[in-house]
Amino acid sequence: MAKVLVFGHQNPDTDAIGAAIAFSELQKQKGQDTEAVALGEASEETQFALDYFDLTAPRVITKASNETSDVMLVDHNEFQQSVTDIENLKILSVVDHHRVANFNTTDPLYYRAEPVGCTSTIILKLYKEAGLTPAKAIAGIMLSAIISDTLLFKSPTCTQEDIDAAKELAEIASVDVDSYGLEMLKAGTNLSDKSADVLLDMDAKSFPMGDKTVRIAQVNTVDLQEVFDRQDELEKAMKKANNENNYDLFVLLVTNILDSDSELLVIGEPSEMVEKAFDVKLNNHRAFLKGVVSRKKQVVPPLTASFQ
Amino acid sequence: MAKVLVFGHQNPDTDAIGAAIAFSELQKQKGQDTEAVALGEASEETQFALDYFDLTAPRVITKASNETSDVMLVDHNEFQQSVTDIENLKILSVVDHHRVANFNTTDPLYYRAEPVGCTSTIILKLYKEAGLTPAKAIAGIMLSAIISDTLLFKSPTCTQEDIDAAKELAEIASVDVDSYGLEMLKAGTNLSDKSADVLLDMDAKSFPMGDKTVRIAQVNTVDLQEVFDRQDELEKAMKKANNENNYDLFVLLVTNILDSDSELLVIGEPSEMVEKAFDVKLNNHRAFLKGVVSRKKQVVPPLTASFQ
Repeated sequence: MAKVLVFGHQNPDTDAIGAAIAFSELQKQKGQDTEAVALGEASEETQFALDYFDLTAPRVITKASNETSDVMLVDHNEFQQSVTDIENLKILSVVDHHRVANFNTTDPLYYRAEPVGCTSTIILKLYKEAGLTPAKAIAGIMLSAIISDTLLFKSPTCTQEDIDAAKELAEIASVDVDSYGLEMLKAGTNLSDKSADVLLDMDAKSFPMGDKTVRIAQVNTVDLQEVFDRQDELEKAMKKANNENNYDLFVLLVTNILDSDSELLVIGEPSEMVEKAFDVKLNNHRAFLKGVVSRKKQVVPPLTASFQ
Repeated sequence: MAKVLVFGHQNPDTDAIGAAIAFSELQKQKGQDTEAVALGEASEETQFALDYFDLTAPRVITKASNETSDVMLVDHNEFQQSVTDIENLKILSVVDHHRVANFNTTDPLYYRAEPVGCTSTIILKLYKEAGLTPAKAIAGIMLSAIISDTLLFKSPTCTQEDIDAAKELAEIASVDVDSYGLEMLKAGTNLSDKSADVLLDMDAKSFPMGDKTVRIAQVNTVDLQEVFDRQDELEKAMKKANNENNYDLFVLLVTNILDSDSELLVIGEPSEMVEKAFDVKLNNHRAFLKGVVSRKKQVVPPLTASFQ
């Protein structure tokens, strides 16, 4: 039988890649022939973490049925965020911490989702349930994933379980969580050398809402103004992306990781759904959202609700 | 806050009711205010098990939003098998052993599915992970659910985990698995005093396949002939059910629990999908399926595939 491929979502963040590596290692320890792959290149933040723990970035794929029939998903379940041929593959298992949507299988499977801040927190539990401990480098990339997903525990998605898991993993990985964490997050905020197209695609996901397709991208920064200095260029790129990919609405969430606030840039229609969702008025396509840092917990649910 | 309601699927079998009781008890032990309810009356098999372990049948509901906002699902996930107002409720958790289909949420949730023979097998794991043990009567109804879903370990859905869980539960419940199990299963095969309508509705589920709706009912017997003596009456009732509920195809799976074989009775179109799925010719609307006892593992997947 061909290898079972393990992967996270398109436009992978540190959890999508870290959870794939960690879950694949766990499967190998249990005797399964698996390989962690990624549905896109590692971001600078993820690459920083991989380098720090001496790990190699997973091979990039966009489809899987040319090399295997069996796959395992981490950090996502929605088919539009997965490999393009996901409907032709047998999904053996899912480990995730998102809502369930646009997902279905023909056969029973192993599905483990918990409402915690990071997939890697659940994967540490799976190691423990199997009576195993992740190796030092694996613990390091899992820790990096938790720091990334919870913005160093500041996101409202962060739970006590994430904090406890991070502490435990930091000990195995022999790093100081706070100093390593801030260094890693800052490695991901270097936006100046990136084109608007690249910036909009770094951490972006599509969501069906009502009968519309909504694209929501997020970038982290230590200076909101630096990003909005490029507003014209960003708007043009968002319009182009909407046209080329049939997105109805493009929402860019620019998050200040030091202040834990975000500002939205919104292009497309129905933009009034954004105003309704967050009880704001868009001004020059922009709106400031105090205390909002989580796409999953603070943006997708109210926006989905406003479409209903 | 109103009580969280915990329930299994419509037309509840012993697992749908047993898993709801057991999972609700676990939540209570963890400090949650929950109540196990059922989406239909207990079958004779289930009632036998409830009586044996001195438990009361859960209250029957068909919708939940009139009394609570939060629910927990066991032994199902597909919305068409749930309360009629499932889309208006917040699903806190799912524990299941079926395929995932026609299921979606706005928010992250706890979702635990494993490809084992019975939900109650997974629930025993959850007790253990919480460092808890089910009480004697709870262990008894969980054991009954495993016996029911695996037809006393003869179904191909049965895994080693189900067998191990049943042994463990039998010890807590102080019963002999084989003699108790056969007695319980036989209690569910008393079909002669039931109308065709009742018989077709005892353990029936609807499945969207292609653009059709397929109804699949299963009845257990110790004598296939006894059921097919009533073929005319069953066919009439199936035609009526198709008309009244817009089912395209009605498949009745009559299972001999002693021989572990089944015979199909098929009414509606496209009936050639049944022939294609099982590589059989329907004769007088009937086809014998040697070794087939599991709707979930041996009927739904090939039938779904034939529609694709």
